[in-house]
Amino acid sequence: MSKNLTSRAEDYSKWYNELVVKADMAENSAVRGCMVIKPYGYAIWEKMQAELDRMFKETGHQNAYFPLFVPKSLFEAEEKNAEGFAKECAVVTHYRLQNDPDNEGKLRVDPEARLEEELVVRPTSEAIIWNTYKGWIQSYRDLPILINQWANVVRWEMRTRLFLRTAEFLWQEGHTAHATEAEALAEAEQMNNVYAEFAENFMAIPVIKGLKTESERFAGAVETYCIEALMQDGKALQAGTSHFLGQNFAKAFDVKFTNNEGKLDYVWATSWGVSTRLMGALIMTHSDDKGLVLPPNLAPTQVVIVPIYKNDEQLKQISDLANTIKNDLKALGVSCKFDGRETHRPGAKFAQHELQGVPLRIAIGPKDLENGTVELARRDTLTKEIVNLDGLPTLISKLLVTIQEELFNKALNFRNNHITKVETFDEFKDVLENKTGFISAHWDGTPETEQKIKELTKATIRCIPQDGEEEAGVCVFTGNPSKRRVLFAKAY
Amino acid sequence: MSKNLTSRAEDYSKWYNELVVKADMAENSAVRGCMVIKPYGYAIWEKMQAELDRMFKETGHQNAYFPLFVPKSLFEAEEKNAEGFAKECAVVTHYRLQNDPDNEGKLRVDPEARLEEELVVRPTSEAIIWNTYKGWIQSYRDLPILINQWANVVRWEMRTRLFLRTAEFLWQEGHTAHATEAEALAEAEQMNNVYAEFAENFMAIPVIKGLKTESERFAGAVETYCIEALMQDGKALQAGTSHFLGQNFAKAFDVKFTNNEGKLDYVWATSWGVSTRLMGALIMTHSDDKGLVLPPNLAPTQVVIVPIYKNDEQLKQISDLANTIKNDLKALGVSCKFDGRETHRPGAKFAQHELQGVPLRIAIGPKDLENGTVELARRDTLTKEIVNLDGLPTLISKLLVTIQEELFNKALNFRNNHITKVETFDEFKDVLENKTGFISAHWDGTPETEQKIKELTKATIRCIPQDGEEEAGVCVFTGNPSKRRVLFAKAY
Ligand SMILES: [Zn+2]
Ligand SMILES: [Zn+2]
Repeated sequence: MSKNLTSRAEDYSKWYNELVVKADMAENSAVRGCMVIKPYGYAIWEKMQAELDRMFKETGHQNAYFPLFVPKSLFEAEEKNAEGFAKECAVVTHYRLQNDPDNEGKLRVDPEARLEEELVVRPTSEAIIWNTYKGWIQSYRDLPILINQWANVVRWEMRTRLFLRTAEFLWQEGHTAHATEAEALAEAEQMNNVYAEFAENFMAIPVIKGLKTESERFAGAVETYCIEALMQDGKALQAGTSHFLGQNFAKAFDVKFTNNEGKLDYVWATSWGVSTRLMGALIMTHSDDKGLVLPPNLAPTQVVIVPIYKNDEQLKQISDLANTIKNDLKALGVSCKFDGRETHRPGAKFAQHELQGVPLRIAIGPKDLENGTVELARRDTLTKEIVNLDGLPTLISKLLVTIQEELFNKALNFRNNHITKVETFDEFKDVLENKTGFISAHWDGTPETEQKIKELTKATIRCIPQDGEEEAGVCVFTGNPSKRRVLFAKAY
Repeated sequence: MSKNLTSRAEDYSKWYNELVVKADMAENSAVRGCMVIKPYGYAIWEKMQAELDRMFKETGHQNAYFPLFVPKSLFEAEEKNAEGFAKECAVVTHYRLQNDPDNEGKLRVDPEARLEEELVVRPTSEAIIWNTYKGWIQSYRDLPILINQWANVVRWEMRTRLFLRTAEFLWQEGHTAHATEAEALAEAEQMNNVYAEFAENFMAIPVIKGLKTESERFAGAVETYCIEALMQDGKALQAGTSHFLGQNFAKAFDVKFTNNEGKLDYVWATSWGVSTRLMGALIMTHSDDKGLVLPPNLAPTQVVIVPIYKNDEQLKQISDLANTIKNDLKALGVSCKFDGRETHRPGAKFAQHELQGVPLRIAIGPKDLENGTVELARRDTLTKEIVNLDGLPTLISKLLVTIQEELFNKALNFRNNHITKVETFDEFKDVLENKTGFISAHWDGTPETEQKIKELTKATIRCIPQDGEEEAGVCVFTGNPSKRRVLFAKAY
């Protein structure tokens, strides 16, 4: 199967699109821009969900569920937020279909069943949630509210790509309410840190934590924290955002509380989210020309065993051994599958598991039975070796940890090698075109300069890195003074 | 708080509505018929989800995700299904809002952004899924497909009630594809059995397994299996359904496969689902006039510890002891919360935990510290006793199992006492009005009789019980011959 995969060098974009489909992760549906997430892709998403959910609960958050629809009057209440999403939202206008009198067997919208007020399919839930929080908050004793929601959202994007940009996507959105500005700011930063930890430790994707510039901020936010990752083609991908919303939504929905001094004040807010877009980041960070490469933490199957046999007797013996290995691995918390399909040859199985990124493959043949060995192959390095059955489960368990670390380090090296300091705009353009990656450059802090650079190069400011030092310099474009470098890149 | 709860005898329906809101489970939202599921309610739903998900996976199913929207042309493809849902579906007709020129600061639907084809917000996903399966199935080797989806769906119901009937609700929907009729039938029955097991063993809700009559079947199904529960007011509630869809959807979407004899045939299908409606069943099966009663399996907090103290010194000592108890319980897999809020008096805490159905409450006062005892109160029986600290965690762990069993048995007794055999229509009406519950009666098997009984009494045939025996008799309404009894009831 992998032979049919376009190589990254040939056409990175095509490689990605093919890989998502051939590895059975997702496919396009009959609905423009909406994807079907297939079981193999969904199993990876479930692992992400479980870990994130654990981390959210550990930091004191609870899950809840708010309506899919936002009445237009609520949608438009926070002006900037509305402006940011109005151009790409699905709108429900009717609540009934009827038989089409002109077209037997067909249905049409019932013109009598027009909604008095149109409903927007949520592109994000601040509006409906803050309208709800209004009823929950009277006093500082009702705060903080620390809620997360797992949900689907719809943004009517014109150009869509599986996982990276789809009209409907799955995500989680945290929405918190606080008595003080400082507490809300700390929450927004905390959740960005949670995302960074998750991306690095669980997905093996190195990220840069930073703040968005005004023009790249979430519509309605006062400050947007983000984590930015670098894909193998040198383009950046925003992997998560956490917004400090100030009192914007509290003001739009009139959510006031009595503080501990008895005074009325507007409530402070944050919101934060990651989505199935992370699946795209995962694929583009680790995979290669043979297919998916999965960090062991995210692999639905961590170890696959393929039998190589000439007769039923051999298959039986190999199956028995495989079962023992599988159970020993299970006891160590390692998931293992025996691929005993008689409809496929070992070569086809190897190719499929390679394409689907199973971290470790064990092959067992008649010789192995004699020698008490197996062949162990690593998906990430494509290396294989003959190992003894003795101590195999422990070896594998440790090896999975090693693979997880090495994938992260490999991605980290690549990322670090693709952060380039430039001092002139010529250098800027040269690096962007020829080396690609993040460009660390001085910027004069104006949206105008940011916009001009974007128009000329398609590069945007990905973030103002949080760990960046103050360093006096001059803007790479205007020559005006600058206090610190920011990171530019072309981005997904 | 519980003082404000209307009693069941006074007004059962009002009792339910108040309880859902006061126990912090859910509330109505700004969107007609759509609810907000609050953290406490959602935590219960999460426990249901986790257990069902485990059971689905154990029976070989995988999760996936299909689009929220169904293009109208797909929606109408399976005629009966379309007919069944056309009258209550939300329809997306536009994909953009714009500034309203007549109304500054307001938005309106952009008339230029009309969709070429309307999109129905899924009321159920057979259409979009079978249109997808068409691309996945060529040969018997591609079968079976055993997929489940956790999703939100929308049915534009006119009369809504929290959890029981809402315009948007959360559910899971299984959609499977099979090579043979027998296999599909077995799957449909298996999943109904899974639901029954879940309802009885996990939710402590006794159910009757059976088949729906033709007029009560899912739109598009050949056969609908169901589980029916009985609420405390003597009304039935359909708690889950599993449909054998025959080849209806395969034919509507032209999904054929080559069978193992090399012949082309249409694929056989099932679908099955349970929803947040189960929350309503849970509440109405076990709760009482003081509030929610939760089976330990579903309680977000199984044990709550309330300190009773006069000074900080006592509070400190009680907290320490509570912490020890909490940790010991945690080791036994029991969830326990220490309610140390200084803003609330013990009485208020007692009332809240009673209202929210925490199965066990421990109160610890200064005397208990002296005596090495605690006061242990059961929510279900409202009994309390002084018990020794010695062996407390084990006692509690066992007691939770007992409570789970006793809740089931109590509900089972009630249910069994409310299945009444009747022979005449006068008896039928009398039992329905005065005793309520299920009525076991002979029926002549015609939709006409079923319809007439419904019109006259509002009772419907809940199911043809699977464990019912053949028994010759005459229809309670027409006097025509009947081969077996069916169960009638008024229902939610
Ligand atoms: Zn490079
Ligand atoms: Zn009774």
